[in-house]
Amino acid sequence: MRTHNCGELRKKDIKTKVILSGWAHRIRDKGKVIWIDIRDRYGITQLIFEEEFSGSKTFNLAKKCGREFVIKIEGEVSERLSNNPNLDTGDIEIKVFNIEYLNKSEVPPFTIEDETDGGEDLRMKYRYLDLRRAPLQKNIMLRHSLMQETRIYLNSQNFLEIETPVLIKSTPEGARDFIVPSRMNKGQFYALPQSPQTFKQLLMVSGFDKYYQLVKCFRDEDLRADRQPEFTQIDCEMSFVDRENVLQNFGGLISHLFKNILDKDLGDIPVMQYDDVIKHYGTDKPDLRFGMRFNDITSIVQGKGFKVFDDSEIILSINIEGCSNYTRKQIDEITDFVKTPQIGSKGLVYIKNNEDGTIKSSVDKFYSTDDLKMIVDENNSNPSDLILILAGDEKQTISAMSSLRLLMGDRLNLRDPEIFNPVWVINFPLVAWDEESKRYHAMHHPFTSPIKDDIDLLNSNPEKVRANAYDLVINGVEIGGGSIRIHDRKLQEKVFETLGFTNEEAYNQFGFLLDAFKYGTPPHGGIAFGFDRLCALFSGQESIRDFIAFPKNTSGRDVMINTPSEIDSDQLKELGL
Amino acid sequence: MRTHNCGELRKKDIKTKVILSGWAHRIRDKGKVIWIDIRDRYGITQLIFEEEFSGSKTFNLAKKCGREFVIKIEGEVSERLSNNPNLDTGDIEIKVFNIEYLNKSEVPPFTIEDETDGGEDLRMKYRYLDLRRAPLQKNIMLRHSLMQETRIYLNSQNFLEIETPVLIKSTPEGARDFIVPSRMNKGQFYALPQSPQTFKQLLMVSGFDKYYQLVKCFRDEDLRADRQPEFTQIDCEMSFVDRENVLQNFGGLISHLFKNILDKDLGDIPVMQYDDVIKHYGTDKPDLRFGMRFNDITSIVQGKGFKVFDDSEIILSINIEGCSNYTRKQIDEITDFVKTPQIGSKGLVYIKNNEDGTIKSSVDKFYSTDDLKMIVDENNSNPSDLILILAGDEKQTISAMSSLRLLMGDRLNLRDPEIFNPVWVINFPLVAWDEESKRYHAMHHPFTSPIKDDIDLLNSNPEKVRANAYDLVINGVEIGGGSIRIHDRKLQEKVFETLGFTNEEAYNQFGFLLDAFKYGTPPHGGIAFGFDRLCALFSGQESIRDFIAFPKNTSGRDVMINTPSEIDSDQLKELGL
Repeated sequence: MRTHNCGELRKKDIKTKVILSGWAHRIRDKGKVIWIDIRDRYGITQLIFEEEFSGSKTFNLAKKCGREFVIKIEGEVSERLSNNPNLDTGDIEIKVFNIEYLNKSEVPPFTIEDETDGGEDLRMKYRYLDLRRAPLQKNIMLRHSLMQETRIYLNSQNFLEIETPVLIKSTPEGARDFIVPSRMNKGQFYALPQSPQTFKQLLMVSGFDKYYQLVKCFRDEDLRADRQPEFTQIDCEMSFVDRENVLQNFGGLISHLFKNILDKDLGDIPVMQYDDVIKHYGTDKPDLRFGMRFNDITSIVQGKGFKVFDDSEIILSINIEGCSNYTRKQIDEITDFVKTPQIGSKGLVYIKNNEDGTIKSSVDKFYSTDDLKMIVDENNSNPSDLILILAGDEKQTISAMSSLRLLMGDRLNLRDPEIFNPVWVINFPLVAWDEESKRYHAMHHPFTSPIKDDIDLLNSNPEKVRANAYDLVINGVEIGGGSIRIHDRKLQEKVFETLGFTNEEAYNQFGFLLDAFKYGTPPHGGIAFGFDRLCALFSGQESIRDFIAFPKNTSGRDVMINTPSEIDSDQLKELGL
Repeated sequence: MRTHNCGELRKKDIKTKVILSGWAHRIRDKGKVIWIDIRDRYGITQLIFEEEFSGSKTFNLAKKCGREFVIKIEGEVSERLSNNPNLDTGDIEIKVFNIEYLNKSEVPPFTIEDETDGGEDLRMKYRYLDLRRAPLQKNIMLRHSLMQETRIYLNSQNFLEIETPVLIKSTPEGARDFIVPSRMNKGQFYALPQSPQTFKQLLMVSGFDKYYQLVKCFRDEDLRADRQPEFTQIDCEMSFVDRENVLQNFGGLISHLFKNILDKDLGDIPVMQYDDVIKHYGTDKPDLRFGMRFNDITSIVQGKGFKVFDDSEIILSINIEGCSNYTRKQIDEITDFVKTPQIGSKGLVYIKNNEDGTIKSSVDKFYSTDDLKMIVDENNSNPSDLILILAGDEKQTISAMSSLRLLMGDRLNLRDPEIFNPVWVINFPLVAWDEESKRYHAMHHPFTSPIKDDIDLLNSNPEKVRANAYDLVINGVEIGGGSIRIHDRKLQEKVFETLGFTNEEAYNQFGFLLDAFKYGTPPHGGIAFGFDRLCALFSGQESIRDFIAFPKNTSGRDVMINTPSEIDSDQLKELGL
C-alpha cells in the first residue's frame, strides 16, 4: 500500500514514482491547484493536484477530500518551488496522478495540531485522536526509545529480564492493593502487585544473579493530580553486591540513557547523606540545578529582643545572588507566597546586602549592623545579594524554606529543563513513628537492611537506625529508589518485630521469604525506577499522563472505554460476590 | 565480592588470584583434600582445599561447609590434574586460601541437580530452590534471549513497543474475565485483559503504524494441564498492510528467532488453506515433519458388501512407509489405541503392501486384489508399505485419523524435536454455529475481516464465509494467530449483527471502537504469538510451566506464596463487597 512513508522523501528522490498512504492533514484548495499534506507517524509530505497532470477524476476526489481522510496516492516526486525548511521533506512535493480514499473521516471533535482546540475531557474521551497529535506521538516514541535503551544497557551488564506474576497475594503493608476474586477458590482473592519486591528477592535466592523487568505495578490510592492506578517500573535486583556496586551499576544506566537519548554527559553522580540534604535543602529530593543552601542562623539571631525570632524553634536563611535591588513589590509578592496556607509561614524577613556595601533589612529596629553582618557572613553573601529569612516551628519552617527556595529558583530561571543535576541520597532513616497506628513504619519497605553499625540501635532507638537505602534524585524529582536487602533470617525477624509484626503475622504474610532465607540466600540489593516519571523528565515535563498511551483520569476511570463499569450479575454470582 | 563469576576461568587464567562467590554445589571430603564445586548462574568451578596451602582455619571451614551454603573464596587458579571435559572450567581448579560463609543453608528439601529427587508438589512449594537447578535456569535464560531477539527484530522493522492498560473493561465475549472491584467507583469493576486487541487497533487509528508488546494476558478458565491463568503474548499490529505483508513480516520474526537462538534456517514458510489441512491432516494444526496425508477412499470401498464401510459416513486411509512387515502384535497395539475412549473408533483395517508384491489385508473376505490395488494406488503406496484405514462418522473419523497419524509419527521417530516445520494456515471460517447458545460465534474474534469475495454470504450462509485470518503452526503446535481486521464501521456492525449482537449491545461494549472507525481508520492487521509456548517449542518441550518463573498450579494457586487467600473484612467493606 506504499513504497515510502510520509517522512522519508528527499531531493535525491526527484522523478521517482511513489505510492504513499496516510492521513489528509491539511488541505489548501486554490481552485486550479490543490495541496494536501499527507501525514503518518514518520512525517508529513506535501501533495499537489492539478487537473492537467492529475486527471479530472483524481482532481475531483482531491477536491472532496476532508481532513483526516485516510488516503493512498500514486505520484511522482518533484522539486518544490518554495521549499519549507520546517519539514524534513520540505524540498519536494508529490505530483499526484491517482488518489484512493482508504477510509473517510467525519470532522474530528478537535483539531489534530500541536496546539489543539480540544479541552482535557474531550481529548481523554477521544484519546485515539489526541494520540495523533505530534507532541503525543513524540512522547510515546520517546518512551519506546527509553525502554529499548534501558534493555540494551542492562543486557550488556548481564542482567536477565524475568517476568514475575501479576496475580499475587494481598498484604496489609504499604499502600492499598487492588484485589481479584478467585472463582476456583471462592472467598479467596489474588492481589495485583504494588511492586515485584519479594519475587525479585526470591530470584536472587534462586541464583539468577542479576534481574530486571519493565513491569506494571498497581496501587489503589486516592489519585492526586499526577498519580495513576497502574504505572510502570524499571525493576532491578543484583546479588553479591554492596551499595557502591549498586550505585555504580544504575548510575551507569541513567548515564547511558542521557547519553544515548539526549546526548548529554551526566558526569559522576554525587552522593549525599539524607541528614545533609534535609539540613541544606529541607527535602530529600533536592533540586541541585542551583545553590541557595539553607543557613541556620538561630544561634546568631536569638536573644536580641526580636520576639518573633526568640519564640521560634528555628530560624533559616538563604542567600539570593544579585537580588539586593528587589523592589518593595517584589518582596511583597514573595511574602504573600510564604504566607499562603499551603506554605503557612507568618512572615518573611529580608536583608539587602547592597551593591554599595550598605546593609538594609526589615528588622533594622532589632539588629545592629554588626549583627546583620554576622548573618551576611553566615550566608557567604556578597554585595548585591539578598538574604531571605523564615522562622517558626522546625518542621514547618524547613518545609516552607524548601518551597521558597524553589520559588526563587523559578523566578531567577535557575531551573532549566534542559539541564540535569542528579544526586544519590543515601542513609535514610530505617523507620518512622506513625502517630495514628502507634507503631513504627518502614520508610522504604520491611526488607531494607539497616546499616551494619546501627543494628544494635534496633532495640534501644529504632528511629536513629539508618537504612542502607538510596534514592536517585534529578532536578528535585525522585527517579528511583532502592536498598541493600536483609538476607539473614534472624535480622529480618528482628525488623518485622520492630515494625510491630507478631511472629504469626510475619509468617502468615512473608513466611515464604523467611523460609527462603534458610536455604542459602546471597547478599543482594536492588532498585526500582519510576518509568513514567523518567519519560516525563527526559522531555522536560512534569505530568506523566501524556507519556502513557491510555491513562486513567483522577477518578481512576478510563473515559474512552468507560471503565470501571457494572458487570453481569451471573458473573458476580460465579465469583461468590 | 567477586573478581570473576563461576563460569569464566580458563587455562589462560592459571596463577591469577581470584575471588569467587556462589553456592556450594557438591562437596567431596577425602580427609586431607576437600573439593567443593562452587556454582552460580554462569557455571561451576572446582575449588580445592588442603591444610598446607589453605591454612587450618580455612580448611576447617571447608570441612564444615554444607550443600547450598553461600560462600566467598579467595584463591589462585591452578591447573587441574585430571581435567573435566563436561565443564567449561574443567581445565582448572582454585587453590583456596580463604573462605567465608556469606550465608548458611539447611539441607534443601530436594537435591539441586539436573535430575532431582523432589516431587512436583514439593518443587512448586519451594519454587525458588527448584529454579536453582540447571534445566530451569536454562529455560529462564532461553526465555530472556527470545524476548530480546524478538525486540531486536521488531525494532529493526520500525515497530514501537507501546504498553496498553491492564485495568480495562469486562466484555462477555470470549473466555471468562478476571475482574477487579473499584473502590472509588463502588459497584463497578475493571477487568484484566484477555488480549490488548481493541487497544492495539486504537493505536492503529492513532497512526502509530507498527505496534508490539510482550504483554501479560489473563483468562479465568478451568485450567487444563498446560494452561496458566496469566500468560505472555508477543502482541503485534500494523497499518496499511494486507495478509501477504503480515505473513512476510512475522515469518521474518520467527525465522530471525530460529536463526539467532538455535542457528537454524527455517527457509520459506509454506501457506496452506484451512480446508486443505483439514482434508489432508484432519486438524488445523498439522505436524508437517512427516507425510502420511489422509486419503479418502469412501467411493472406492463402499458398495462391495462390507457393512462396516457401507454404513460409514467416511473411510480414510494413510500410508505408512516400510511397515508392511508389522507383526500381529504391533497391529494389535495400534488397534487398541484407536479403540480407546478418547479416540473412539470401532476398529482398524489394514492393508499390507508386501515387499514381494503381494497384498494382504484384514478385509480380504470383502475385497478382491483389484479392489485392494485401487486403494494402494489411491495411497501412492509402494511395496513394503502398510496402509491403515479408519471408518465411521465424518467428524470422529477425521479426528481419530489425525491422532493415529501422530501416533505413527511417534512410533517411527518422525517427530524429531530438533526439526522444525512451520506452516501458515489461512482462510479459516469466520464463524461457527454454537448449539448451546443457538448463535454464531467468531472463530477468531469479532474484529476479524471476512475475505472480500465472501462478504455477500454474511446474510445467506455465514458458515461459508472465510475469514482473512492466519495461524502459524510449527510441528503441530499453534504458535501464533491473527487476522486482517475490519476497518469499516458498516462492515463491523454487520459482523456484530451476524454474531447475534443487538445494536445496543454492540455499542455498549465496543462503542469506542465503532466511534473510532468514524475518524479515519487505516486498513490494518496483526498477530499474537503465545510466548510461553514458543519458549517451550524452542527447547523441544511440551509443557510451558517450566518456562515461567513462578507459575500457578492447575487450581490456579501459587502454593509457594499461598495465593489466592482470604483478605481482611475491612478491605472487603471498603470495596463494597
